[in-house]
Amino acid sequence: MSELSSIVGVFRNRDWINTQEWTREELDKILDASFELKEKFRQGVKHNLLDGKTLFLIFYNRSLRTRNSFEAGMTQLGGHAHFLDPKDAIYTPALPGDEVAYTTERIADVARVLARYGDGIAIRIYGKHTNWIYGRGNLVIREFAKWADVPVINMECDMYHPCQAMADIMTIIEKLRKPQGKKFVMSWAYTPSVEKPLAVPQSAVLITTMFGMDVVLAHPKGFELDPQVLKWCEQNADEHGGSFEVSYDMEDAFEGADVVYPKSWWSQDFVPPKVKTPDFEGLAQLFNKNKRWICDQGKIDVAKKNAIYMHCLPADRGFEVTDDVIDGPRSVVFDEAENRLHAQKAIMAMIMG
Amino acid sequence: MSELSSIVGVFRNRDWINTQEWTREELDKILDASFELKEKFRQGVKHNLLDGKTLFLIFYNRSLRTRNSFEAGMTQLGGHAHFLDPKDAIYTPALPGDEVAYTTERIADVARVLARYGDGIAIRIYGKHTNWIYGRGNLVIREFAKWADVPVINMECDMYHPCQAMADIMTIIEKLRKPQGKKFVMSWAYTPSVEKPLAVPQSAVLITTMFGMDVVLAHPKGFELDPQVLKWCEQNADEHGGSFEVSYDMEDAFEGADVVYPKSWWSQDFVPPKVKTPDFEGLAQLFNKNKRWICDQGKIDVAKKNAIYMHCLPADRGFEVTDDVIDGPRSVVFDEAENRLHAQKAIMAMIMG
Amino acid sequence: MSELSSIVGVFRNRDWINTQEWTREELDKILDASFELKEKFRQGVKHNLLDGKTLFLIFYNRSLRTRNSFEAGMTQLGGHAHFLDPKDAIYTPALPGDEVAYTTERIADVARVLARYGDGIAIRIYGKHTNWIYGRGNLVIREFAKWADVPVINMECDMYHPCQAMADIMTIIEKLRKPQGKKFVMSWAYTPSVEKPLAVPQSAVLITTMFGMDVVLAHPKGFELDPQVLKWCEQNADEHGGSFEVSYDMEDAFEGADVVYPKSWWSQDFVPPKVKTPDFEGLAQLFNKNKRWICDQGKIDVAKKNAIYMHCLPADRGFEVTDDVIDGPRSVVFDEAENRLHAQKAIMAMIMG
Repeated sequence: MSELSSIVGVFRNRDWINTQEWTREELDKILDASFELKEKFRQGVKHNLLDGKTLFLIFYNRSLRTRNSFEAGMTQLGGHAHFLDPKDAIYTPALPGDEVAYTTERIADVARVLARYGDGIAIRIYGKHTNWIYGRGNLVIREFAKWADVPVINMECDMYHPCQAMADIMTIIEKLRKPQGKKFVMSWAYTPSVEKPLAVPQSAVLITTMFGMDVVLAHPKGFELDPQVLKWCEQNADEHGGSFEVSYDMEDAFEGADVVYPKSWWSQDFVPPKVKTPDFEGLAQLFNKNKRWICDQGKIDVAKKNAIYMHCLPADRGFEVTDDVIDGPRSVVFDEAENRLHAQKAIMAMIMG
Repeated sequence: MSELSSIVGVFRNRDWINTQEWTREELDKILDASFELKEKFRQGVKHNLLDGKTLFLIFYNRSLRTRNSFEAGMTQLGGHAHFLDPKDAIYTPALPGDEVAYTTERIADVARVLARYGDGIAIRIYGKHTNWIYGRGNLVIREFAKWADVPVINMECDMYHPCQAMADIMTIIEKLRKPQGKKFVMSWAYTPSVEKPLAVPQSAVLITTMFGMDVVLAHPKGFELDPQVLKWCEQNADEHGGSFEVSYDMEDAFEGADVVYPKSWWSQDFVPPKVKTPDFEGLAQLFNKNKRWICDQGKIDVAKKNAIYMHCLPADRGFEVTDDVIDGPRSVVFDEAENRLHAQKAIMAMIMG
Repeated sequence: MSELSSIVGVFRNRDWINTQEWTREELDKILDASFELKEKFRQGVKHNLLDGKTLFLIFYNRSLRTRNSFEAGMTQLGGHAHFLDPKDAIYTPALPGDEVAYTTERIADVARVLARYGDGIAIRIYGKHTNWIYGRGNLVIREFAKWADVPVINMECDMYHPCQAMADIMTIIEKLRKPQGKKFVMSWAYTPSVEKPLAVPQSAVLITTMFGMDVVLAHPKGFELDPQVLKWCEQNADEHGGSFEVSYDMEDAFEGADVVYPKSWWSQDFVPPKVKTPDFEGLAQLFNKNKRWICDQGKIDVAKKNAIYMHCLPADRGFEVTDDVIDGPRSVVFDEAENRLHAQKAIMAMIMG
């Protein structure tokens, strides 16, 4: 454990909200630690780097991977994670103005109290819990970070999913060795559910441009990502020697790809602040016009022969992707899911240690 | 801990779904370990046999004993159990065909992901969560087992409750020494709730015939158990030197019994696949015709003088059993409940270690 | 850890339901241990006083501080706490007469089963979960205590909140050194929610009179506390050299105070047993007549210059208290919340060890 213990507290007390707030060198350090922790886990070597420490997990939204990888990760690090359901287990943490007597509690108060009991606060919030107002989930997380003097971890908001991004790049490195110069395609895909946030695609294009990949973002018109994210992607590409472009054709985009990552997200045109209230009918119509955006074997065949298929899961099988692709030889989705565990353990040990 | 550590991983990676899939010799080994763990617990001797390991508990249905004995058991073994509510904490694991976009997640995916994070998956599912289709709960558990490469534990499905069976036979051994040749009566009993599955009685008659007891299954017409279970019971009786018969009279059955185990279960005649949709009115009518199937002092008096009263709990007091019986000197229900802890710890240490 | 280990089991197996059932000397011992545990926590010194032990947390009502301080506290003591939601995770523990087949389970049974698996049972219950019948929450807790042969902890019932009381007196000692002879004002305050129980104010006046403070209880007519509590307060004042009086004017009461503790509670006049069913409209009317009972800067100014502002949280900001007071220099609410952790860890180590 001698080498491993050297990662504890390397980034003590920093918040983990968006990878773009971290330098490439810092992210490399986290990745090194992630790979080392993965190897120790494989060997069954104990690594109690956060012995007796507590992480609070506040899940406004459902979760399988995130909750279980954080909770198991804390156990493996010698600590414990509290699963907190803000619906009826605790007083729902709320921004000023959203408060209801004896039902909610101001985030400033929740954050300051929890910081006295434990060592980190992690939050997932998007969709209906933010009234579908883009950016409000991120605002909630930043409000926690403002008041808590323990590190705050973004477990997916409406803007970013930085833990997924770390697992994604880790998986790409495992499968392709060097990301630099490889073609990465983040593509929209159809699903009957119109409620998936932009967090995964935004964090995916940010991290892959940061690692010098040739990134193509593909989606039908109307599914544009946040302009700020696009700007950062161009900056990243400039700085790190990759490229970034947008395509409106899934098949074109897949051509010659090393990595394809097709998944669904909603359209900003039908949710606040662009419109006053979310227009689910409009969303459904736009979605239904694009049912052919499915990742099937035909589309995969235009990518490179050894191209990999990625998805953050849960995948809507039969819509976003066909069974033969997600269960096929190019799919790396379970390695990708597993890497959540290792990347998050590295992040926790480094900021909470 | 020298002797105890020798039980770790003895049955590494085997699933625990139905005792009938285990030999008598294997079950004896589990019982030996259970008694030893019980003694260490009594002595307050630490036994971190699953240090830092994680068990996932997926509870479609309520639970007091099962959840708390598994969770406390994992703590006592040095690990941690995640309590997972598939209703809104995680994406509900579903069989192909039962999927709903962004609400459910295919069991194949859930099982493969969790297997990457931890060391075992335990599931409870029956009743409304299976649309009352007999066997579908068991199918869900077997689907998990098919895909997970960590052991899967049945925490009660619509067919079997093998953990309860182990606690039951453990309690019988504690109270009667040798089960061989003793009379065990599994009896139906009335309750206003018509929703209790067949798991407990089926696993009870399977385990007691496996241990050479003289087993009588008593119930009103219409409450027949699964024919396959009855067949196995006869085979068990043949092989292990006991007997198995069915009675339609509670008092007759109790005559000369060493152990009585009266509890409620639903009738297969009113649920799928025998009928298209569950007929709760029909069930209620059949139940109400059999209100005299209550375990009261009068009925207990026809059993042997030192006969013991068993129940898996929760008992519907005043219906299945009178207070004077369940709180009386013959009741062993709390020892039986306690033995859940020790038997499950043995199973976990042996298959997850 | 040599000194600390001496606190383990000092009050082995005693229940923690109401501070009034403990002597001043015993409470002093708990406080000493609380301060010592706080210091060890600050220093990061491990204190596994309840290694591998389990505490069951049964929360009928919401909780942020209580749940998280107990769960994190158990982790810090080397054990684990189960968060149990009696609504649908377990069979709801119920008193005889309140039982529903297969939905509830008699408390006598729940208590005896859990006592076999773990080392303590903690319960929070008031309000709608007691049908608003004053005293019934306490009855539930005492029923658990009657049947469990492990210690039972009151995490707030409709009568007492003894854990809060210990954190309160601990905070007063930290801020004012000696409570003896200092003026403590427990005051009612307005909020639109009429559902807050009397537990906090009752336990606050009991503990502060026990510690010889000059206690003033202020509230509008109609918000009288339990006569038995008032009688105990007078006895405490006599025995411990303080005083106890009731005021009907918030500002008068605050005059010259060292500590002000303004918070809301319901009126006994509108809930059973005084009336047959809770009269929420009557409550709302009484509450609305007293909107000026808010703790604002003007009111704080009549207290001593260095007076402290206390609240158990969650505070209904803008109603019970203005932001400038609760976020101002006199507010000690986060130290008070933190002390929950240390006091409860002392109690757990002393009764569960």
